[in-house]
Order: sequence, then structure tokens, then C-alpha cells
Amino acid sequence: RLRGYTQFRYNRLPSFRVNEDLINDQGDRFLGKNNGFGIRRARLIIFGDVHERVSIYLQPDFASVISDQYNVAILRDWYADIFLDSAKEFRLRVGQSKVPYGFENLQSSQNRLAFDRNDAINSAVKDERDLGIFFYWAPSEIRKRFKDLVDNNLKGSGDYGVVGLGVYNGQTANRPERNDNLHVVGRVTWPFLFGKQFVEVGAGGYYGRFNVTASPSASAPYALAGGENDLVDARANVSLVIYPQPIGFMAEYNVGRGPSTGGFGDFTIDSRPLRGGYAQLMYKLDNVAGVSLIPYVRGTLYEGGKKFETNAPRYDVRELEMGVEWQILKALEVTAAYLVSDRTSSRAPYQQQRGDVTRIQLQVNY
Amino acid sequence: RLRGYTQFRYNRLPSFRVNEDLINDQGDRFLGKNNGFGIRRARLIIFGDVHERVSIYLQPDFASVISDQYNVAILRDWYADIFLDSAKEFRLRVGQSKVPYGFENLQSSQNRLAFDRNDAINSAVKDERDLGIFFYWAPSEIRKRFKDLVDNNLKGSGDYGVVGLGVYNGQTANRPERNDNLHVVGRVTWPFLFGKQFVEVGAGGYYGRFNVTASPSASAPYALAGGENDLVDARANVSLVIYPQPIGFMAEYNVGRGPSTGGFGDFTIDSRPLRGGYAQLMYKLDNVAGVSLIPYVRGTLYEGGKKFETNAPRYDVRELEMGVEWQILKALEVTAAYLVSDRTSSRAPYQQQRGDVTRIQLQVNY
Amino acid sequence: RLRGYTQFRYNRLPSFRVNEDLINDQGDRFLGKNNGFGIRRARLIIFGDVHERVSIYLQPDFASVISDQYNVAILRDWYADIFLDSAKEFRLRVGQSKVPYGFENLQSSQNRLAFDRNDAINSAVKDERDLGIFFYWAPSEIRKRFKDLVDNNLKGSGDYGVVGLGVYNGQTANRPERNDNLHVVGRVTWPFLFGKQFVEVGAGGYYGRFNVTASPSASAPYALAGGENDLVDARANVSLVIYPQPIGFMAEYNVGRGPSTGGFGDFTIDSRPLRGGYAQLMYKLDNVAGVSLIPYVRGTLYEGGKKFETNAPRYDVRELEMGVEWQILKALEVTAAYLVSDRTSSRAPYQQQRGDVTRIQLQVNY
Repeated sequence: RLRGYTQFRYNRLPSFRVNEDLINDQGDRFLGKNNGFGIRRARLIIFGDVHERVSIYLQPDFASVISDQYNVAILRDWYADIFLDSAKEFRLRVGQSKVPYGFENLQSSQNRLAFDRNDAINSAVKDERDLGIFFYWAPSEIRKRFKDLVDNNLKGSGDYGVVGLGVYNGQTANRPERNDNLHVVGRVTWPFLFGKQFVEVGAGGYYGRFNVTASPSASAPYALAGGENDLVDARANVSLVIYPQPIGFMAEYNVGRGPSTGGFGDFTIDSRPLRGGYAQLMYKLDNVAGVSLIPYVRGTLYEGGKKFETNAPRYDVRELEMGVEWQILKALEVTAAYLVSDRTSSRAPYQQQRGDVTRIQLQVNY
Repeated sequence: RLRGYTQFRYNRLPSFRVNEDLINDQGDRFLGKNNGFGIRRARLIIFGDVHERVSIYLQPDFASVISDQYNVAILRDWYADIFLDSAKEFRLRVGQSKVPYGFENLQSSQNRLAFDRNDAINSAVKDERDLGIFFYWAPSEIRKRFKDLVDNNLKGSGDYGVVGLGVYNGQTANRPERNDNLHVVGRVTWPFLFGKQFVEVGAGGYYGRFNVTASPSASAPYALAGGENDLVDARANVSLVIYPQPIGFMAEYNVGRGPSTGGFGDFTIDSRPLRGGYAQLMYKLDNVAGVSLIPYVRGTLYEGGKKFETNAPRYDVRELEMGVEWQILKALEVTAAYLVSDRTSSRAPYQQQRGDVTRIQLQVNY
Repeated sequence: RLRGYTQFRYNRLPSFRVNEDLINDQGDRFLGKNNGFGIRRARLIIFGDVHERVSIYLQPDFASVISDQYNVAILRDWYADIFLDSAKEFRLRVGQSKVPYGFENLQSSQNRLAFDRNDAINSAVKDERDLGIFFYWAPSEIRKRFKDLVDNNLKGSGDYGVVGLGVYNGQTANRPERNDNLHVVGRVTWPFLFGKQFVEVGAGGYYGRFNVTASPSASAPYALAGGENDLVDARANVSLVIYPQPIGFMAEYNVGRGPSTGGFGDFTIDSRPLRGGYAQLMYKLDNVAGVSLIPYVRGTLYEGGKKFETNAPRYDVRELEMGVEWQILKALEVTAAYLVSDRTSSRAPYQQQRGDVTRIQLQVNY
């Protein structure tokens, strides 16, 4: 069976403080100067049960980029779920799939309110995915609850188990593994029901060693501290979600250490401390002239490296995003948001940039 | 729902004047020396209505090229039609789709008689597509007529509206936008019915600024005139189609200005005048021993640049193509054609080449 | 209609003689140091009859690699079968498809027991495929037999005709043709039935000229002998398959000449003699505690070049693989094997390497 979604964006609407050097390669490649319309995600998902104990989930993205060539088909998910019991409470997930770290990482971009994931948690795993074997357990009743939280448009994460454990390569999705050791990850979460209000609380962490790419030049001699690569990459996080019935709140925070320069002007790459999180408030308004509206405001903080970028630059991110999602039809959503951003640029020499952006996105679900 | 088509070619049949330096990168990458069998197009289209007011059309091409790597999956179309009224006469098309400029650009390669599109009009938009928002209007009766002209194998363009308006990035499909302004396009067309004979007359134009890539060397110092990029790129065209019932005729002509060198030996790139068009005569023979035959002859003229090629070389093209399409089954078409060509090479130093080519193509429709 | 399969691997299980320099780019890119989990094949096949005389078979692989970018969608098969008679005994296959040379090359990786194809025969055609036109003939009764040999999990090759003839570009799949001549191939095979035992005997050969890529450096001056490229590339092979009912045996051998260096330290590339083959013993155990088990042992020998690799290095390969395929469900197979290998490295300076590897693979069929 086929389904999918596509996100079209236009980021050049007027804002109070335009800064053409404000760019964010991980979040949205259509920021910064010389941009116009963009296809942010173009997903087609092939999924189904191939046996009562085996199901597949194959998701290429048709809006991926190889150097200057846009819109190449590259994998996101490509995994099989192997159910260990007939009630499907215990399962192994083999292949490339999301690493169970954090809540927003696991929530589909199809369901997320904010335009992009927060830097604090998302810097843990580029594209949220890696290649490995994961074990998930969730009782039937909670599996149903995970499903309902998505189906009722309460912006759930879907079912990544109440307990999730895994081992994976650690160099992030669609990249060659570059060392001989694996990352390990663990996560526990529970969607409580208080009366009619769903509240989900979770915690988790991962540990591994990451192989960084440095690209030194005469004026910017980026180098590994002591010449040693395969740097310690480890984090712990907590998350809280109060589902929007109608008022909602979600927050996550993580601390740890990972590959990073020491900041602007420091060219030494080492495993350094990092910390950050976000908090978001939202309000779900149903049947406003026949449509559903969800205004939201989100604040993000992050101080730490992005290990998967060349030279593992250190980021200092402070962002506030105010937006509204307008679900016109089940097939059609428009989101508009105003972003106040103070962040390190994704391009060398990784300078700090302050600017605002007004963005609009049309999402088509199929 | 899925459909698609594939074109297999062999271009090395004997001709009166073989010229191994006669190449045409935009038209057919299997021309010139060191070639054999080729897959020119390998299309798979996923389309359908996801709501009574929303439909999607997703078309990757599996025969695209990234440097030396053939047959990579890259997008062609990826758009949603959003109908503004229940009769579906007014619609917005959002995403990557064909730019409504000219007739042959909009006609599917699945339906075109000639092996490749004409240089005169096709030089306006590489791959015929760009990323943007387009508005189309056509009365229900004319929408049906557009559909019939394709279904009855009269080689129509499909429904791009009687009126089409749009804004788009302007750097052509699957390429990063490289400036902050958009292209605008407008087109009007009408398929008249005189007795039983369909005749379509159209006109349109576009305006924008295009960012050129120059690749200078010591011996060939290509450079932008005055060092300024984002050159004016604007055209107007007219088209006439007399559908083959059984005799048919089609012609288009366009004038304008766009990025271009001054010709062979002139290394200055500037916005320069361009002009050109084509005329084609065809005859539809049905039920010739159970199959359908359409012989055709087409002449093309073009003087102007190809903005999307490195250095925006100036082309001088004079071509005559004589061929016949032989529809064996609905699923299987063979086309053979003899091409007499005098054209500028697509490779530096962009010399003029005179040669003939005999080509055969098998098209499979599914 | 859609079907496909995926192979996930982990190659770093303990072995008696670990050699991190033992790599084999054609066979398994997840060998050697700095590796972990890998997706070896991620296939999705779209196939069907579009007319009683025309069928299509479109197979992209989503685990292909472009330089450092893993998991890009690139073609494997993309062809149409055109049946010349209503009994479908005679057919033309047009497009990119498997070159009918050898048995194991034609057998799907979905059905093969060993982890990778043998070097001896597989060095004839990278990815087993090329672009061209092939003619196949098989009587209806034998077509059914070919089908049964696959359906009953006897590890057949599928129907590539009792007689197969073809012309193709010769530079192997998804690569530009680089000369003006074509390769020709012919093959005859017959699946005999002795009582209840199926035995298949085949023979074939091909001839063409291959254009080699040399990458010389100061210390390694790789060069074409006499400066001439388009080297003779010709082989003949014989194959014998005794299908596992329950004991099975298969062997192939080929001799010929093809582009190759003279071995380690010889930098001259010329058309040189090559020879090699493999023999495999297997035993099909059905209903062992509800599942099917097939242990196998395979020995491979090859002395000759790999024309499609840069510099066409000469290989000396001696390998022994002992493994077992465990078919848990129709949808799920696990294979584990121990490989004893003495082979030339795929990377310059192409040194001989001796080492063992223990591998495990999960295959999901859908």
C-alpha cells in the first residue's frame, strides 16, 4: 500500500529583521539568500504486512540533494518489523529506521507543528535515522493509544514502544560506517491517561563513538585534538508531552557530550559538553469555520556541536517560533510561522547570525 | 494509481553524412561518438485524487544522470492540483511542474512525434519544468476537449488551462534557486472546433532574471558582461496546431532575449536577443494493416543562447527531421526518423556541426 | 504489481583469521575495516502485463551508492518483454536486463544461497546487466519447468530461455557506452528431468570490445599496452546444476580473455587470458522443526581481470564458503556463512589478502 506527503515552502515573506546569512542546513536548506520556492520533503511510503508476523516500511524521499543536484530519490526508512509474539507487543525492527532518542525526533514531520525539528535533540541523529537493530515493547492497550494519538491529530509520535533498545552504526542515515564500534540507545516512555487528558513522559540516552570529518585550510586549521578520531558521543534526555485537548504543552531537554569545535575561532575538534532543549505551547481549535487551527509557540536553546557536519562546528542556538497550522482538508494543511533566530551559521567560518524569517508551507497528504 | 512509459533508442543506424561531433546534450545524450543503445526516458507516474478538490501527480524519471552515473531516479513532476470550484474549472498547481510556455513543451514526450523537443521553444525551460505556483482556468467543455485530443491520439498537450499564469524560481527543474527574484509566466490558448476539425491557437510569454554559470579558462575567458549576473530572460511566443484529422500541421515561434555568449569566439555572456521556431506537417493513417501510422516532417530554426548550460553558449540550429511513428499496439510504439542537422555543439568550444542521424525508438506505454 | 526483497547484513562476527584489508568491492562493500550493519540490496519491482503480448519489469535498487552517498535509487532492470507468438515461446527483451551469460549470474540474489556471486563468472558483467536487445526461446513445457524450479525453492535461474541471444553496449549497467561497437552473447541451456530429479546443463559465450579506465600516478603508471583502448573481451562458459532434491550440486567454469593488468607490480593493461569457476554442494532439509534449512559449501577460483574497475586489476581469488540458509517464513530468511578467502584487494595497489569472515544476513521477501 502506498501513502506519503509533500511539503512545499516559501520562506521569503517579509519579516522585521531580514538576515540573508541566517542559514540552517540541517533544518531548512531554503533559508538564506538566493532562495525561492522549495520542496522540503517529498515522501512516498510503501508499507504492508507480508506475513502475520512480518511487516515492511519502505520510505524514499524524492527531495534529497547530491551536491548541486536537487530532488534525487534517497532512502529514509527501509525496515522490517518482526513480531515476536502473536499480540505484536514485542518486536524487532531491522534496517534503516528512526533511532529512538527523544520525542520530536520520532514524531513524523507530517504531524509536527514547527517547520523543523529543534536543534537541541535533532543534533543527536541527522535525519533521525540510522542502520541497525532495534527492539520495541509496548502492551496492546498502549499500542492502540499511540495510534489514537496520531489518528486524532493530537500530534503523537506513533508507536516506538514503551521500551525501546537498539544498536546501530552511529554515523547517521545513508552514510558509510566509519569505525568498528556501534552506538547503543535506550528509551522508556509512557502515555498516561488522566481522566480524558493524555500526558506522555519519557527518558532515554545513547552512547557511542563518532568519526568526524575535518577539512582544514591554511587560515582555518581544523584538527582533531590529539589527532584522535572516533570521539565519545553520548547523551541523555527527558521529555514531557501534554497532548492538545485543547491546550497542549511539550518540552524536551538533553545533556551530554559529543564531537565539537570549541566555538568560533577555535579549530580543535574534541568531544565536548553539550546541552539544550525546547518548550512548546499549542492550542487545538476544531471546527473554526469548518477547519482545524492549531496556533503554537516554541522556544529552543542549544549549545553544542553538530557532529555530522564537516569540522563538527559548535552551535549556539536561541530561537523563538510562533506559528499556526491550518488544516483545511485531511489532504491539505497550510502552516505559517514567524521565526526569531540567533544561531550559528552552518557554513564556515560558522559565525553567529541574528535574523527573523517568515515562512509558509503547504503540506499535501496522500 | 500507476502508469508510465519508457523510450529505448538506437541512434547508430547508417546515414548519408555521419558526424561524430554532432551532439545535443539537451535533446538526446545518445548522439555523437561512443554510443549505442540508450534509455532516453524511464518514467513512472503515481497519480490520483486524494480529495474531491485535491489531486496529486508524482513523476520520477529513472533514466536521469549524475555525472558518470546513469539511471538515477530524479524528479520530473511532483505537484498537487487544488481545485477552487466543484466543477474543477479553476485550479492552483503547487510544486514542480511544467511551465506553461509554448505548446510542444507541454505536450508529453509520450505523445510527441519528433524524437526531441525543438531547440527554439525548449531552450526556454530545461526539462520544461520549474518549482512554483501556477493558476489554470479552463471551462468544463474545453477541459473535456483537451482530454479527448490526447485520448484519441491526436497528440494534444493535455489540460494546462485556457488561461495559465504562474510564478516560479526560474533556474529550471531540480536545480537550486540562485537569486532572490521569481519568473512570471502567462499563456492563453484555445482549441477551436471548426466542423469536425480541431485547431488550437495560443500565445504567451515569461519574464525573469536568470543566474548563469561561467567556467572560464586561460584560452577561453568566459565572463559576464560588466561582471553582472542575474541577466534578463524574457520571451514571447505564438503557436498554431491543426490536429491530424488526418492531415495535421503545427508551428510555434518565439522571440525574446536571454543569457548568451555572442557566438563562437566571443566569450562575453550577456542578455542577448534570440529567436526561432519550428513547423511540422503530419498525416495520421489509421488501420494500415491493423496498426496506426503517422509520418511527419519537421523543420526547426533557432538563434540564441541556452542559459542553463555552462557559459550559456549561443546556438545556431537548422534542422530537418523526417520520420514515422508506427503504433503497433496501445502499449508499443516504434518511431524511426532521419535527421538533417546543422547545429552548434553542446560542448566547448561550441563549434558548428553539420551531420545526419538515423534513429529508431521503441516506446513502451504502461 | 509490486514485489521485492531486502538483504540486511552484519559481517563483523568473530572469525579465526580477521584481516581488515580483505575487501571485495564487487561482492560486498561491507567487508573490511570500519563497517557495521549494511543494506546490501533494497529492491522494489514493478511488473505486469500491459498487453497479452507485452509485459514490463522495472526494478530499481534503493541501496546503490554514489561516492559517499549511500542508499540512492538506481536502476537494475528496466525492460519490456515483447512476445512474438501467442504461446509466448519466442520473445524479445528490450532495455536494461541481465546478460544471459552463465547460470549464477541469472539466478536472482533472492534465491542464491551464497552471500555474493562468484568472481569467476560475475567478473564478466558488473551488476549482471547491460542495455541491449535480447532474444529468448523456450518451449511452453520448459518455461513452466523454469518457473517451478524457482517456485519450489529449488534455486532455479528463472526463464532466460533455452536459447538466448543478444547484443548490448558492453560497458555494464548504468554506465555510458564508451565505444561504437556492441557486445554479442549467446547461451543454450536445458533443464532435464531424470525420473524426479532435475538437472540443468548449459553453455555459452560472448564477444566484444571493452573501454577501460586507467588512473596512472607517478608511483603507479597504469597505462594501456600500445596506448590502445577498446580491448578484446571474450569468454566461453559451461554450467551444470543438479537441483537439491534433496542433495544438490552446481558448478560453472569459464575461460577467455579480457582487459587486465599483468598482476601486482605490472602496470600495463592489455587483453589477457582469464579462467575460473566454482563448485557448490548443498542439501535441502524441509520441515526441520517447521522451517527449511539448506546447508551449502562453495569453492571458487578465478585468475583474471576485472575490466569495469579502474585500471582493470588482475585478480587471483581462492575462496571457500560454508553456510546455511534458514527459511523461517516465506517472508523471512536468515543466512549465516563462514568464508575462507585469499583474494586480491579491490583497492590499489591491489595486494593479495588472506583472511576469514563470518557473516549473517536477514532477507525479507515481499
